Amino acid sequence: MLAHTTPLGVKIDFCIFGAYFLKMKTVLAELLTIGDEILYGQIVDTNSQWMSVELSNIGIKVIRKTTVGDVEDEILTAFAEAEKRADIVLITGGLGPTSDDLTKPCLAKYFNCGLKMHEEALQEVTEFFKSRGRELTEVNRQQAALPECCEKITNAMGTAPGMWFEKNGKVFVSMPGVPHEMKRMMTNIIIPKLTKTFNTPVIYHKVIRTAGIGESFLAEKIEAWEKALPPHVKLAYLPSLGEVKLRLTSIGNSLLDLQKETEALTENLIGRVGHFIYGFGEDPLEVAVGNLLKEKNLTLAVAESCTGGYLSHLITSVPGSSQYFLGSIIPYAYEIKMRQLGVRPETLEKFGAVSEETIKEMANLVRAKFNTDIGVATSGIAGPGGATPEKPVGTVWIAYSDKHQTVTRKLQLSKDRLINIKMASTAVLNLIRLSLPSNAMG
Amino acid sequence: MLAHTTPLGVKIDFCIFGAYFLKMKTVLAELLTIGDEILYGQIVDTNSQWMSVELSNIGIKVIRKTTVGDVEDEILTAFAEAEKRADIVLITGGLGPTSDDLTKPCLAKYFNCGLKMHEEALQEVTEFFKSRGRELTEVNRQQAALPECCEKITNAMGTAPGMWFEKNGKVFVSMPGVPHEMKRMMTNIIIPKLTKTFNTPVIYHKVIRTAGIGESFLAEKIEAWEKALPPHVKLAYLPSLGEVKLRLTSIGNSLLDLQKETEALTENLIGRVGHFIYGFGEDPLEVAVGNLLKEKNLTLAVAESCTGGYLSHLITSVPGSSQYFLGSIIPYAYEIKMRQLGVRPETLEKFGAVSEETIKEMANLVRAKFNTDIGVATSGIAGPGGATPEKPVGTVWIAYSDKHQTVTRKLQLSKDRLINIKMASTAVLNLIRLSLPSNAMG
Repeated sequence: MLAHTTPLGVKIDFCIFGAYFLKMKTVLAELLTIGDEILYGQIVDTNSQWMSVELSNIGIKVIRKTTVGDVEDEILTAFAEAEKRADIVLITGGLGPTSDDLTKPCLAKYFNCGLKMHEEALQEVTEFFKSRGRELTEVNRQQAALPECCEKITNAMGTAPGMWFEKNGKVFVSMPGVPHEMKRMMTNIIIPKLTKTFNTPVIYHKVIRTAGIGESFLAEKIEAWEKALPPHVKLAYLPSLGEVKLRLTSIGNSLLDLQKETEALTENLIGRVGHFIYGFGEDPLEVAVGNLLKEKNLTLAVAESCTGGYLSHLITSVPGSSQYFLGSIIPYAYEIKMRQLGVRPETLEKFGAVSEETIKEMANLVRAKFNTDIGVATSGIAGPGGATPEKPVGTVWIAYSDKHQTVTRKLQLSKDRLINIKMASTAVLNLIRLSLPSNAMG
Repeated sequence: MLAHTTPLGVKIDFCIFGAYFLKMKTVLAELLTIGDEILYGQIVDTNSQWMSVELSNIGIKVIRKTTVGDVEDEILTAFAEAEKRADIVLITGGLGPTSDDLTKPCLAKYFNCGLKMHEEALQEVTEFFKSRGRELTEVNRQQAALPECCEKITNAMGTAPGMWFEKNGKVFVSMPGVPHEMKRMMTNIIIPKLTKTFNTPVIYHKVIRTAGIGESFLAEKIEAWEKALPPHVKLAYLPSLGEVKLRLTSIGNSLLDLQKETEALTENLIGRVGHFIYGFGEDPLEVAVGNLLKEKNLTLAVAESCTGGYLSHLITSVPGSSQYFLGSIIPYAYEIKMRQLGVRPETLEKFGAVSEETIKEMANLVRAKFNTDIGVATSGIAGPGGATPEKPVGTVWIAYSDKHQTVTRKLQLSKDRLINIKMASTAVLNLIRLSLPSNAMG
């Protein structure tokens, strides 16, 4: 267990959680990103946002984010500054095999120890290449050389190992900048190790996931509930395309008490806006819908035009989706709608491809062709081209079909092609959820 | 014109651009973001990426990005640190009308001058509210009170004015954190004002996009070329799933000279690894492939199994893709491969769904069914389920078919479902590029 007294901590806690926290000392972290590509604006740093959330989940407070370039002096200065401010310094980037990657030599210099081939790391990187049928190059072999004073952190998704340093009660962790490598390392190793090393308060999070209602409408509907939240419970709105997540964060001394209290608050919320709530925690809408289909033992087929494959991608991004998803047709061209799916030429000519009549046929036809319980369909003007005065960019028809009913919805979305594709796909998933026979959550 | 001698500047230039730069002084900028919401990970900071690109376009080098919370001490410390390092400090956030917005009082304190109602700013904020049919509240009226020592920067898109400070040859600019307000202010006022105030060098960037080769293999193949780069030209590797981008950044006095020199370096690179280069600049692989299909007037159909819609999504994410993409079948279930696509039961029984024989049939069949020039197909074990000892997770077959040839590839990818889906989709796009008749880029 490390000491971690930071006078700054008390003051900041007071700002955030009120007087309740004067008695506790918060563990402080600084996130340090290394790489010219971020300073030049060639990529957006999404890592540090993800890390902030993860750290907050275990009660560690991020007090600063810093980005410096691939320059030794800048990196060393940033190390020294961060060490003064924070208990934990989490470093990403600059671990690649090429000569512009300076994080490792800088760490060796900062902690005053030499690089040495780490036998276990070498074995791991060798295995990594072998499993992909590729030969280990000398450049990659050198990635297994680590500063002698660090603890190696296994990289299950790539070739650059992470590194863990301890010095004067402070912890430095270096991780790759590749998001999926960093995330796996954080989740499986760093987060558990940090909770063991530091004394953190009990923080309990619960995420409540809604679809089919916008942020401001939701806020209006739950205004009274929100105002009645006790001071040690914080509410955050996390909107994304077609969804709003609500995150309750409570802080205290007993996990059991916090869980009980959050449960009661959630029950009350379900009484107010239960229709919009599709699940809790990490599982996105496509997982919730998949679980409903599995429970009810129903199969699904998709005919998607304007969403161009994205709806099927969401559905099949879920492991095990082959249990309920049989397949799709993407009838992108007009003639494919007729020839491959069987939409009647009269319907297309009279009402157009983007119409209630066409979307109904599409959902019914794909269900019949694939012999599934449920068929869904999309057809619309994703943009930027293809609009008419009656059907502007963002006009999308969606449909759900089972043996009892065919349900259609007209959406008026945005001017942006990708946003339209994603919002329409989410809307179909939500339509499935709400239209399934005897839906327990509705 | 301000003086802008920063001893650090020379040193940093030397590290980055070599001796060539001892004679020039680069103008250095630091980006400072203020706001708890970024430290907590509630929003991703996309402002600083956009600003980096804009500054780089006028030859100003961003040397650091810093984010601090809504805490007076933290903000004042960050001001002082940034002033030491940079010639220009661009601040976003913390200008809202509520009590947790501290940027303005902190700037007044830092530059040691009082807040005073700015008549022109008051007129602008009054106009802003009037044009939206809303009444000016006292809280919003206070947004027009500015430090006496600053120059007001008009906010054409919102209520909080920007502020421009000069002190000891350094410039501080404070802008709102709302992206569209900040962008309008930067483009119309700050960027022109900075080019007038500072003597900036010319910086030229070129991005070269490759697919089908990993970072370390590419680095080995171009090692000699990289070593021979002149000192004022820098190379960066920017890898993502299935792709590696190379970025050349050169710095000098004449844009024309830099462009010519970069052209020659690029030609030389094409001579070494032209096979892997699919394009330049911003356009991703799906755009490059789309352009090739348009040029050659060819049409495309897709039969994708393990990629589950993601390949079609990449293709249709490109505006105008309906010109060459006719549609897809996603035969996710075994029986759909037979019934909807027409794969022979004997092939599936004898070789399995993940086999060269099946993938060949799939690509040929979808081309025939959709009557297109080209058909492509994917079938594999995306994971985590479905593996056998002979076909572990990550085994993927892909195929390309036109009237002259059918080309197949076996990929051995990762253990991660989403990575496999994305890498396989990229591999198919690259296979199309390389297999098209009389490919000019090959």
